Amino acid sequence: MAPDQTALDDAGAPPPIRLRDMGSLHVGGHDVRLSGLPCREVVMAEGGQPVSLDPNGTYRVEQMYAQYFLAEPASGRPPLAFWHGGGMTGAAWETTPDGREGWLNAFLRRGWDAYLCDAVERGRAGYALVPEIWPEAPIVQTREDCYTRFRIGRPGTRPGPDSAYPNTQFPIAAFDRLAAQMVPRWVHTDAAILQGYLALLERVGPMIVVCHSQAGVFGIRAAQARPDRVRAVVALEPASIPLLAPDADYRTPTLIVMGDNMDTDPRWPRMRARVQDFARRYPCVTVLSLPDVGITGNSHMLMMDRNSLDLAGRVHDWLMNLPPG
Amino acid sequence: MAPDQTALDDAGAPPPIRLRDMGSLHVGGHDVRLSGLPCREVVMAEGGQPVSLDPNGTYRVEQMYAQYFLAEPASGRPPLAFWHGGGMTGAAWETTPDGREGWLNAFLRRGWDAYLCDAVERGRAGYALVPEIWPEAPIVQTREDCYTRFRIGRPGTRPGPDSAYPNTQFPIAAFDRLAAQMVPRWVHTDAAILQGYLALLERVGPMIVVCHSQAGVFGIRAAQARPDRVRAVVALEPASIPLLAPDADYRTPTLIVMGDNMDTDPRWPRMRARVQDFARRYPCVTVLSLPDVGITGNSHMLMMDRNSLDLAGRVHDWLMNLPPG
Repeated sequence: MAPDQTALDDAGAPPPIRLRDMGSLHVGGHDVRLSGLPCREVVMAEGGQPVSLDPNGTYRVEQMYAQYFLAEPASGRPPLAFWHGGGMTGAAWETTPDGREGWLNAFLRRGWDAYLCDAVERGRAGYALVPEIWPEAPIVQTREDCYTRFRIGRPGTRPGPDSAYPNTQFPIAAFDRLAAQMVPRWVHTDAAILQGYLALLERVGPMIVVCHSQAGVFGIRAAQARPDRVRAVVALEPASIPLLAPDADYRTPTLIVMGDNMDTDPRWPRMRARVQDFARRYPCVTVLSLPDVGITGNSHMLMMDRNSLDLAGRVHDWLMNLPPG
Repeated sequence: MAPDQTALDDAGAPPPIRLRDMGSLHVGGHDVRLSGLPCREVVMAEGGQPVSLDPNGTYRVEQMYAQYFLAEPASGRPPLAFWHGGGMTGAAWETTPDGREGWLNAFLRRGWDAYLCDAVERGRAGYALVPEIWPEAPIVQTREDCYTRFRIGRPGTRPGPDSAYPNTQFPIAAFDRLAAQMVPRWVHTDAAILQGYLALLERVGPMIVVCHSQAGVFGIRAAQARPDRVRAVVALEPASIPLLAPDADYRTPTLIVMGDNMDTDPRWPRMRARVQDFARRYPCVTVLSLPDVGITGNSHMLMMDRNSLDLAGRVHDWLMNLPPG
């Protein structure tokens, strides 16, 4: 059994993290060839020589990126795949905005192997920002939009300690550091993102998918497409539930965790209703609505909220109690 | 003294990597406020509700991202800051295209703390892809351009084992995996990138900068701006040398490493001449031209070439022999 590395030492510091390996890989994607375009003269660095840049040639597009951290000793459990939400990257699972350990460390300390992913078009995955390949413009969320959409403060308010939900668990003084980690996203890339994640499962083998917000759809879709490769799905506040066919089979153990303060925003009660419908239809789906078990104030950013490590512990316990598969 | 963790065990496997902490941070950047723009209706996820996206508001732009890995036990040496080249991200220092350990692991195993950085506008740093903020289009290098510009094969050839330099150290069969990690870059962002790196130095304290290609300029500029915070610079094939003022002082110990096969491409001999001028002018600058010491075939991607771990060992030795500062 893998050791629990969550206990503090006598000085109150956590013990070292021990990894039998760490590294990264890019998987999936395909080549696109462009021709017949004019060259462009550019100076690529201060003091550099002007060079002629020929846009004609081959581009690798729609690959994804995963950074792996393999806990020592090996636990024998399937690795966790961390899939971030829209406008975010793998950084969402690292240090919290207020500087505490994130879920990546929390699960490594409990002996899990982890693949910290950047989806297609996000972060270190790269993105096909050549107008002949992706003509669409991305969207970028403003700080104000994040603040209310992520249910840190009530719709119509502006970021600040006075406008936050009174019971918020989000570390509101560090909201700027959440804003700093938001990146552009496209809205036409769902199929490409899912293909990237399926390529990861193909490469690595059976995994447990821990997904947030936008990635909830990808977690459920991946489990449906490759039930042999997705042992369980943990979806933190999925932004949507995919529309499965009426006769679709879905048997992957799935835990959906939902936070608080949903009733003041018209978007969230609709989403909660879809989550509840999904759970009614498939007995393998468990919904953990935190306010229903007395845990109040959680925002959409469950893995950053002040009680994030307690929530990680609950998810760990749920995973450890799954039937062996 | 920090232990050397590079020795293999009896089964030929490297020992575990031990970290006293790991996490990430975003530093630098500034807020931009937009107003008076029309809203846009978008569906943000499959099956999701159409939402009105209001682009008016505040954007955090030009921050940078650093992922830190702190070796256990602490060595007492300044941490290394890994600064990637143009069109790349921090992934450049991780697993090599052919699946070997990268420089990040190589230096962690020698007891160094490391900050794996994504520059402003690259990777997990995010980028201000709002046309009202950054009207310029990025450039994206084709696979063919990378192949010759990085001196894997001779100008005018196409990627493939037959066209590579006969003595190339680049793992040519894995060239596709280098192509997969290339991302778009802008060419108007030098000042913002440097500001981001200075913010990192301000936050962390004295560091040793290990920089590649485009980042050579940033390493030297940062050392000039903050000699108290840059203890040494290791520049792998800098793409340029900044134009320092005639009376500029430069006293930071600096090692510049240059590879092979420069004479067949008009860009590289010019660059080598600038590097040699720089070293003649400042006695703190050491140039290690690998062919001059009998190491042949290195491409522009020194940290990915087949002899990358040998080169890491040479850089480590140079750093360990610096006078205490």
